[in-house]
Amino acid sequence: MTDANWKTAISDVASGQIRVRGYDITELMEQVSYAEAVYLLLKGELPGKAEASLMNAILVSSVDHGPTSPSVLATRTVISGGNSLNAAMAGGVLAIGDMHGGAIEQSAKILQEWALREGPIDVLAGQLADWLIQSNTRMPGLGHTLHQTDPRSGKLFEIAALHGYSGRHIELCQALEGSLARKVGKHLPVNINGATAAVISDMGFDWRIGKGFFIISRTAGLLAHAYEEMTREKPLRKLGPMPFTYDGPIERKID
Amino acid sequence: MTDANWKTAISDVASGQIRVRGYDITELMEQVSYAEAVYLLLKGELPGKAEASLMNAILVSSVDHGPTSPSVLATRTVISGGNSLNAAMAGGVLAIGDMHGGAIEQSAKILQEWALREGPIDVLAGQLADWLIQSNTRMPGLGHTLHQTDPRSGKLFEIAALHGYSGRHIELCQALEGSLARKVGKHLPVNINGATAAVISDMGFDWRIGKGFFIISRTAGLLAHAYEEMTREKPLRKLGPMPFTYDGPIERKID
Amino acid sequence: MTDANWKTAISDVASGQIRVRGYDITELMEQVSYAEAVYLLLKGELPGKAEASLMNAILVSSVDHGPTSPSVLATRTVISGGNSLNAAMAGGVLAIGDMHGGAIEQSAKILQEWALREGPIDVLAGQLADWLIQSNTRMPGLGHTLHQTDPRSGKLFEIAALHGYSGRHIELCQALEGSLARKVGKHLPVNINGATAAVISDMGFDWRIGKGFFIISRTAGLLAHAYEEMTREKPLRKLGPMPFTYDGPIERKID
Amino acid sequence: MTDANWKTAISDVASGQIRVRGYDITELMEQVSYAEAVYLLLKGELPGKAEASLMNAILVSSVDHGPTSPSVLATRTVISGGNSLNAAMAGGVLAIGDMHGGAIEQSAKILQEWALREGPIDVLAGQLADWLIQSNTRMPGLGHTLHQTDPRSGKLFEIAALHGYSGRHIELCQALEGSLARKVGKHLPVNINGATAAVISDMGFDWRIGKGFFIISRTAGLLAHAYEEMTREKPLRKLGPMPFTYDGPIERKID
Repeated sequence: MTDANWKTAISDVASGQIRVRGYDITELMEQVSYAEAVYLLLKGELPGKAEASLMNAILVSSVDHGPTSPSVLATRTVISGGNSLNAAMAGGVLAIGDMHGGAIEQSAKILQEWALREGPIDVLAGQLADWLIQSNTRMPGLGHTLHQTDPRSGKLFEIAALHGYSGRHIELCQALEGSLARKVGKHLPVNINGATAAVISDMGFDWRIGKGFFIISRTAGLLAHAYEEMTREKPLRKLGPMPFTYDGPIERKID
Repeated sequence: MTDANWKTAISDVASGQIRVRGYDITELMEQVSYAEAVYLLLKGELPGKAEASLMNAILVSSVDHGPTSPSVLATRTVISGGNSLNAAMAGGVLAIGDMHGGAIEQSAKILQEWALREGPIDVLAGQLADWLIQSNTRMPGLGHTLHQTDPRSGKLFEIAALHGYSGRHIELCQALEGSLARKVGKHLPVNINGATAAVISDMGFDWRIGKGFFIISRTAGLLAHAYEEMTREKPLRKLGPMPFTYDGPIERKID
Repeated sequence: MTDANWKTAISDVASGQIRVRGYDITELMEQVSYAEAVYLLLKGELPGKAEASLMNAILVSSVDHGPTSPSVLATRTVISGGNSLNAAMAGGVLAIGDMHGGAIEQSAKILQEWALREGPIDVLAGQLADWLIQSNTRMPGLGHTLHQTDPRSGKLFEIAALHGYSGRHIELCQALEGSLARKVGKHLPVNINGATAAVISDMGFDWRIGKGFFIISRTAGLLAHAYEEMTREKPLRKLGPMPFTYDGPIERKID
Repeated sequence: MTDANWKTAISDVASGQIRVRGYDITELMEQVSYAEAVYLLLKGELPGKAEASLMNAILVSSVDHGPTSPSVLATRTVISGGNSLNAAMAGGVLAIGDMHGGAIEQSAKILQEWALREGPIDVLAGQLADWLIQSNTRMPGLGHTLHQTDPRSGKLFEIAALHGYSGRHIELCQALEGSLARKVGKHLPVNINGATAAVISDMGFDWRIGKGFFIISRTAGLLAHAYEEMTREKPLRKLGPMPFTYDGPIERKID
């Protein structure tokens, strides 16, 4: 037998009736934004104004970052092999890993563990900086391979400030940036993953779903790239990775 | 060499600068909704007020439909096997096929082909109904296994009407529902897939990306179910498909 | 309730006992090759000597084709994003589409339809060639972008001939190659996908699982490339598709 | 530019020529088994007789375990949603995670770390047992939810013994089973994942590709189940997870 006693608290569905966390889907369609619906699904309650703006900004911030990101390359490759749209988008989602979007959950994990400790934020930030330096750990969510300063993180913190929305995680994240810069002598600004981690932590989201916001956001870009690949490029075009060199064994025979 | 001459018109990215279809990402984060950003990515221009409301309603309409849909089952199964969040969400996206969400693109394809023909909509609807009956083709986007009347399609058409937003595809879709009911003697109301197909067709979207809106929408529900499975259930629980009977060969030996 | 009456004829499993199509798994582990086990799973019976050799040759033929194939690129991209081995291999399998491995099923479909017709093979081959030319259809499984003559198809037919194994599908496939060359004046030799299609059709496999043999075969290469990427390359390396040009809108503001 | 200096040692491909690790693919098709080809791809050299038999036994051992495993459920669910064969098989591979096949890599990791230590195997096994007990760690690869004794592990060790093939990893694995039974007073026999971990470790495979052998093996079963679902079942059938209870909020209105 399948598991007979399991429960779900997300949606209740019957003929002619779909309720998400208790709200009728038709009311939601008319009265809430997609970002608010995402918040409702995950937290069980509709967001306030600040949380709605922040959730929307997070979902917009990562819709696309050009064609060189692994998720877009995977999506275009799957389309190029002659596959369906959902297979291509799934391929893109598969590429979103520890090195690509993963800093959200890794950074949120550290922020959530440290923000629980007692004491003023600047002291905690100093202790966290020391621990990172001593354990030779790179803080996820700081620095970016392309952007010296990631314009998206500043904007996200600005929206939070506009709403007077700031808790221990945002404060710790910002204090850590300064503390690390002073102690290491090198300034690594918070990137969008780090800022997202801080904001969703203050909203009370579990760090384990941090990458989920990035995934939802990026599906929009994946769809746009899938469609562009479909309509502007030939199938099986040379997407990469070339040129390369073969350095294995030369010709030989089975004995 | 990789394909050296390919072009993309989606995003332009440089150090400290991310532009989507020409708009700075920080402006978008603050001033547009996620639904508007999706429209911008796909069409290249920001939507008007009617299109923004409709795009948002479409994205909210399919965020979740309870745990029995194939996409949710696939996501929960992948989590249950002990996998990462992105693998689980990709698994869910993989299940969104011709029988699950696919009616959007199949219905939009038919509507887009027929709406091109000349003549008044009610005549076209009658001809389309005749063709469907004669070729024994089931019109995708009509009827629902669970809902006698799908509450979401009525709401979507209502939002379109509120904005005075109606073109040949919405009209043809609605006329077809009546025409088929009269000719066949059985009323199959437009479901959310059919209504979405009609609305995105009037917005000028290619039918080939119809399923993409459903996929973006549903990733929210997949994330919520992945998290619920992670936090409320034990790994490797009996998710299905049981009970079943084995009816293959009984025990035998290799000769 | 889940579907209470469904049946499976593949495996029968109980405590201390696993039987595949009636055979004890421990007997199979010791006495049959993996290729024979694949045949057993799909056909329900163990293969004869000819079928075992051909199934093995098919599975070996496509284990790898270098790093430029879409499936390998997708697998390496997923690894490069910082993901698990199974996510990477799934990404590779996703890329195996109509344009990459898909010719097996498309070619087998045509061969299986035409081989049912009455008449001598050379007459059928001529008629099939005429139909392809008149309907401007490219026969899947003929020609190759890289190989003037695909060495694998010749070897597969040679193994079939060695065992005196030839039916209407192999004959039709080979006759069609000659017939098309004469009628079109251009020689497109059968490639490995076409040869596989002909051989599995003579073995009695449904064309709808044609791509499955390619997928099983290629998982070996995907694993090897995933491991090489993991051990020889840095994460997030520039896998492609670059260089490219952005040709979308230049900078603009939201009105 | 894509990464211009990268190298691969797996395959060398040119017009009319495909060489895997230096061997011509047509020679391999005729002279080696699929299991030997897998070994060649991963190790760079053809296996000896013992390794070939063991690799084959490993690949045959996990071809299928009935329809209740997560990978099969995911594959059937993706087919049921109306998707392509490769999407369905990829869905199945996605479900092969830490709790499903993952014990191979986790067990091999521990065996490879401990087998490096000096001292007689029975002493090491006792120390490893003590460490597991003290750190309250469950040894992966021991015990099975269904099988009191997994028939496949005994057979795999038997094939190794037949070839006089035994190294420190197989010995450590077997000694650990006994040592833990004595110290804990409960006998948890080595299951197929544990036995595979021990055998591939003695063959010199990196624990990080442990799950790969299971994935290759199981693709055969996934294909068989995909085909059975396609041919014996209706689309969108109730695969699970039902019955379930909704225990979220009752109906409510947006304020």
